Amino acid sequence: MIYFDNASTTKPFNSVIEEMNSFNSEYFFNPSALYKEGLAVNRIIDGAREVVANKLGVASEELYFTSSATEANNWALLNGIKNKKGNVVISQGEHASIFECGNLLRSRGIEVRWVTLKKDGTIDLNDLENKVDEYTALSSIIHVSNETGAINDIKLASNIIKNKNPNTLFHADGAAAFCKISNFNNIMRDINRVNWLDFYTISAHKVCGPKGIGALYINKNRTIAPLIVGGGQERGQRSGTENTAAIIGFAQAVKDFSLTSSNMIKEIHDYLKNSLMKCGWMHNGSEINTGYILSLSNPKIKAEILMRLLSEEGVLIGLGSACANKLSQNRVLSALGATKTQIEGSIRLSFCPTNTIDEAKIALSKIIKLQKILEGKLIK
Amino acid sequence: MIYFDNASTTKPFNSVIEEMNSFNSEYFFNPSALYKEGLAVNRIIDGAREVVANKLGVASEELYFTSSATEANNWALLNGIKNKKGNVVISQGEHASIFECGNLLRSRGIEVRWVTLKKDGTIDLNDLENKVDEYTALSSIIHVSNETGAINDIKLASNIIKNKNPNTLFHADGAAAFCKISNFNNIMRDINRVNWLDFYTISAHKVCGPKGIGALYINKNRTIAPLIVGGGQERGQRSGTENTAAIIGFAQAVKDFSLTSSNMIKEIHDYLKNSLMKCGWMHNGSEINTGYILSLSNPKIKAEILMRLLSEEGVLIGLGSACANKLSQNRVLSALGATKTQIEGSIRLSFCPTNTIDEAKIALSKIIKLQKILEGKLIK
Repeated sequence: MIYFDNASTTKPFNSVIEEMNSFNSEYFFNPSALYKEGLAVNRIIDGAREVVANKLGVASEELYFTSSATEANNWALLNGIKNKKGNVVISQGEHASIFECGNLLRSRGIEVRWVTLKKDGTIDLNDLENKVDEYTALSSIIHVSNETGAINDIKLASNIIKNKNPNTLFHADGAAAFCKISNFNNIMRDINRVNWLDFYTISAHKVCGPKGIGALYINKNRTIAPLIVGGGQERGQRSGTENTAAIIGFAQAVKDFSLTSSNMIKEIHDYLKNSLMKCGWMHNGSEINTGYILSLSNPKIKAEILMRLLSEEGVLIGLGSACANKLSQNRVLSALGATKTQIEGSIRLSFCPTNTIDEAKIALSKIIKLQKILEGKLIK
Repeated sequence: MIYFDNASTTKPFNSVIEEMNSFNSEYFFNPSALYKEGLAVNRIIDGAREVVANKLGVASEELYFTSSATEANNWALLNGIKNKKGNVVISQGEHASIFECGNLLRSRGIEVRWVTLKKDGTIDLNDLENKVDEYTALSSIIHVSNETGAINDIKLASNIIKNKNPNTLFHADGAAAFCKISNFNNIMRDINRVNWLDFYTISAHKVCGPKGIGALYINKNRTIAPLIVGGGQERGQRSGTENTAAIIGFAQAVKDFSLTSSNMIKEIHDYLKNSLMKCGWMHNGSEINTGYILSLSNPKIKAEILMRLLSEEGVLIGLGSACANKLSQNRVLSALGATKTQIEGSIRLSFCPTNTIDEAKIALSKIIKLQKILEGKLIK
């Protein structure tokens, strides 16, 4: 089976599954327990936090584990605004978990302003500058589009926002960016000196870690009310018994993902992109992308039928965000200007470090064969 | 090692770990994906939901998976009140995740009324009746005390509440009750006919399932706004990629926990209770208890020292809720009338189906030996 739907969820590394096993079977103790076994698990969680925080380029004490990126996004958006006043500026290219928080905030009487996308799927920075004003409490921009893989320049976005209004808090959703951008460390380098980033969301199951675990970076110079209260875990910021095995699995995934080659991913991405564009497919997205996601449209076919036929042949691809499958239309592709026909003919191929160029070659031949059938060319 | 701190967290059954393994390594697909592998995982989640719902005695479509009981409690308490008006009635014996929601609601301007506990750790039903009035929007009662194991008659509590005010919504926190009360099915039997229960919280890692998964029962005649919004998973009620492996592990734990003998638990509980009471310990709690939790006080010793010495000898016990360890005082024991000295001399022994009476005998002899040392009797 060839699995090219890694933007939906990845298969955990074997090393991750092994680590989780040992934490479920041997180190199952509650890290809040005061006997030495509990304290040991607590220290191991601290070590895992350090691994993830280091990779993100932030201090351990600024990273808070959550049950998912969706929860982290909800936390930042719903509680990131002090006094629940002012307007909120969000891009049209956000993941459903930000988009729906925008709708929820609006239903609570907060003005939400949507920044438009450019045709390449990145946000329109001029429009961002126009939308932010002295009353903007919070702005949220997706770092890498989960639909197209397009990279937004969040540092430049932050500069635009903070120059316009130094009091606006800035959140970036990094679920599709974390571990997948080569100059990440460079972006984060001055994070604590300049305070350009206030909140940042990451997820484990996008980097070959387990489902059920994400994290929110909270700049140490900012405070935010917890979304979930109770026993005071995560230094009082996120209650609920720590999901030890998943936290350890997250750290293991980050370690192993970091050892893999993004050049190989780029090779697969470019090979499929170039080959399919020669066969009439249009690329949705920017030349500045991670390489992990490839969105293509072919208005002559129904992508859902192609996806189903491909899956019968052992090639699994996506149609777009799994978190938006229930919607009749792809909101993000629509925002970057795709027509209804283009959207219905859109596929999302997404990759992980265990994919190979040979898989790409097999998948390509199957896509082209089925495309011809669907376009009626084989019948003519 | 003898592990008697199962109320903090249990060791997952081997069968649970094996099931989770296969879902992490082979069935890792996103259940929202539309190819057959995703749809298959989706069906398996539905099957797991049915197992857990059946055990709870509710319909599958009334059960929503969350990341923990803490999240489920937050969901019910923070969003259970329509229009965020009226008062809320909570017992003094609640878990930290309910207690802190009470504090949060109060900070939002909602009046919170605390129902007192009786000396046996159950809630004072007369006080409950006094506290509920025509403006009571929501009441929450812990089904089984996580500190003492005392069982509250939640059906009677609901009758008292609904007779006083039929519009009051009733939530019960069942994290320490689920799978641990013999007449559970009988309690739940008429749940959909009479609608006495509106919300109910359960957790996997208290019944030898994995951490990071819980669920909220929502009576099908009630609606509640989601706590976490986004991709619309869990039928629009709880967003975030489904934690497949943990959900499957939860169902497996419920299946296997149901096959175990509560008589054996009761035997261990009563043996330790009776033996330690003969040695000067006082029982905190009711004669009506699950048998899974045993809280005892000895004002002549510091329990924390006993706990640490016991752990050196391979016996792990608790001092009280792991979700309250950071507090200097045990809030629940205090509410049932224990003095400061009694609380400092309190231990919590808690059991799971893999514990044996032989373990209880070894633990008892070690507790008594150390107790004598701490009481200074061996020195005299």
